[in-house]
Amino acid sequence: MSAGSPPSQEGLPPNVVRQLTASADELWNHSTEKINAEVVALTYGSLVANLAREALSSGAGVAAINTRLDEMGYNIGLRLADDFASRTHSLFANTPTRRTGDGANSVSLLRRCADFRETAEIISKVAFKMYLGESPAITDFALSSPADGNRPAFSLEFVEPPFSSHVMLPPVLNGRSTSAGETGAGGKSREDALSYLSMIAGVIRGALFALGLEVITSTPRCTLWGDSISEIRVVLVRKIPASAPPSDD
Amino acid sequence: MSAGSPPSQEGLPPNVVRQLTASADELWNHSTEKINAEVVALTYGSLVANLAREALSSGAGVAAINTRLDEMGYNIGLRLADDFASRTHSLFANTPTRRTGDGANSVSLLRRCADFRETAEIISKVAFKMYLGESPAITDFALSSPADGNRPAFSLEFVEPPFSSHVMLPPVLNGRSTSAGETGAGGKSREDALSYLSMIAGVIRGALFALGLEVITSTPRCTLWGDSISEIRVVLVRKIPASAPPSDD
Repeated sequence: MSAGSPPSQEGLPPNVVRQLTASADELWNHSTEKINAEVVALTYGSLVANLAREALSSGAGVAAINTRLDEMGYNIGLRLADDFASRTHSLFANTPTRRTGDGANSVSLLRRCADFRETAEIISKVAFKMYLGESPAITDFALSSPADGNRPAFSLEFVEPPFSSHVMLPPVLNGRSTSAGETGAGGKSREDALSYLSMIAGVIRGALFALGLEVITSTPRCTLWGDSISEIRVVLVRKIPASAPPSDD
Repeated sequence: MSAGSPPSQEGLPPNVVRQLTASADELWNHSTEKINAEVVALTYGSLVANLAREALSSGAGVAAINTRLDEMGYNIGLRLADDFASRTHSLFANTPTRRTGDGANSVSLLRRCADFRETAEIISKVAFKMYLGESPAITDFALSSPADGNRPAFSLEFVEPPFSSHVMLPPVLNGRSTSAGETGAGGKSREDALSYLSMIAGVIRGALFALGLEVITSTPRCTLWGDSISEIRVVLVRKIPASAPPSDD
């Protein structure tokens, strides 16, 4: 993906993935303060309900809720990137990547990921494991995705998306409201649907920006809309030049 | 506290406390889905910031933020009570309490707590452990507290309160704003201070209501206001008669 590197779909070598997964498990099990996921789901539900109340009463509409969740997530991601970098510094210091081949002591592994496939694997197998205790599947990876402006892209798929247990969206929020206009297949209008994963998509966008990658994220599928899985799509726009690193604060 | 029972400050027998603590640890370690506390603190921070923005821009003031957090917590508590009752049903089925002396198979241990001291211990050592992974200290317990209308009352004290890592309240929210009026010791006006623990206090109020106890909660001290600890005060108003149980839905 970077200039001079031949494109690769290979990602990290399997033994490195095993090592990172074990290290992430170790961090999760022994060095992480945690909160019961049920409490978190209920708290996040309160946050979303409050935003929905505010947006609908002011006439801003459902899209404004998704935008706000994404903004909140982006700011959380900027903060989490610092935490991620400091907690994984030693973990990654001696981990060679397939492309660079060395264990250079850099700010973070994501920063020096040789290709986007490696980035996807670190997000799924290390970052999600460290922060949410699970690793979503990586699907539809492409170095040049036609549906995504011929950019590198991948999806993260969740069978049981985080923060969503026991959640049911009312019709006015799930894109099935008749008053919101029934468009598209199955009478759904996804532009009018509240995307419960918007905050997590925003977190990915913010954290990757802080770590040197500008991406676009979207949430094309959601179990709360009746889909069998929830999906976050991550599309690489550009690597931010190392000569202009994002500010630390 | 209940009619016919002599008052007691004894609480649960030490061996029962040890057994419950071990069981709560077991539930926490092996049967609980969890989320990284840093993620939760940042998410809760977003929720509070959003409420603060909304309240201050509408002129509603800081007290409205606390009220809204308490309401959110109350609704979360009503939901968590079901979860607590179902997850601890088998755990408590054979646990004798000091007053009842038997292991009657009741809806929940809280429901049949013989005195308020037992209730305090179950909240601290079982419920907080199960949901937040830590057990706050119980302090200032009294069966008839003069400062609390001669009602049974206790405090839960937190050295590092949940959800609060890396949080700093701006002057307009921590009761030290000069424009808000400097009253009381140290120039603070606590009526004008955002209480970060209001949601957790509301959770306790909601969960206890669902389990048959009507309480008043308050948050007299907070590390975010410069206090050395954060405190939630819980005052018993009445036991809700078993003949009129709260609705399940």
